[in-house]
Amino acid sequence: MTMRGVSLAGLNCPVARTLDSVGERWTLLILRDAFNGVRRFEDFAARIPIARNVLAGRLRTLVANGIFVRERYQDHPPRYSYRLTPAGMELYPVIVALMQWGNRHRMADAPELLEVRHKECGHQAEAAVLCSGCGERLTAREVRAGYVPASVATDAPASEA
Amino acid sequence: MTMRGVSLAGLNCPVARTLDSVGERWTLLILRDAFNGVRRFEDFAARIPIARNVLAGRLRTLVANGIFVRERYQDHPPRYSYRLTPAGMELYPVIVALMQWGNRHRMADAPELLEVRHKECGHQAEAAVLCSGCGERLTAREVRAGYVPASVATDAPASEA
Repeated sequence: MTMRGVSLAGLNCPVARTLDSVGERWTLLILRDAFNGVRRFEDFAARIPIARNVLAGRLRTLVANGIFVRERYQDHPPRYSYRLTPAGMELYPVIVALMQWGNRHRMADAPELLEVRHKECGHQAEAAVLCSGCGERLTAREVRAGYVPASVATDAPASEA
Repeated sequence: MTMRGVSLAGLNCPVARTLDSVGERWTLLILRDAFNGVRRFEDFAARIPIARNVLAGRLRTLVANGIFVRERYQDHPPRYSYRLTPAGMELYPVIVALMQWGNRHRMADAPELLEVRHKECGHQAEAAVLCSGCGERLTAREVRAGYVPASVATDAPASEA
């Protein structure tokens, strides 16, 4: 069995199925830039060190997966921009969580850290796992995970979206 | 320039550097299982549909990157288990954020959803971006991002870890 022989989308797991849409190498960097306001192909190309045809393929996949919408912003010659859909916007905690971990554990030699701040009050944003009931910050030790029938998953995130 | 010609670790970005450690296909599924209590090679192999040599390579990389520690739990024949380090444990928001998005957007046809609940109060865990000052839930529209010198990043996540 080869790595490419198995589809992540076929696994009955929400983590695997999300990775099937965004887990390709470089795709999460495209999303990082989209959350930072980048929309045009040329601007993505200037920020992400991959071949243009690879970038074009990743953008097509993101559109096909309902994470970006493509819009023509110029007719002659035709030029397109890519904007996050509402579903795409909901990937924001993934990106901030990756950023936060990198700031903590991979930027020791970097002269600068990437900061994300709340515009309104100026404090730093953070990615966290919270209890939707009591609001407590949770580690993996404080939870239990399991599959439940969709019909009884009454306070599943899906119903809160 | 080929895709593989560029190292994510060489980019001066915490998202890219995190992906350099965990962005390989299947690696985040290995972490998913680790957060679910899986430790032994055979147990990872039973849950993740990849070749054993690929799994072994991913586990080695996770150890080399300081995300897992390897421990021998049996001598004859030698058998190893893999446990999350404190740094590895801090990847939990990444996994829950991926899970949450998948539950919301990729499990419509699934009879079951994966739920993570706070042991103590029984309510569902959620991944969110929060303001560390006022506690508000933040979307990408409510923040501004930018690089700041490490020396002045006084409330950067690094200093809170």
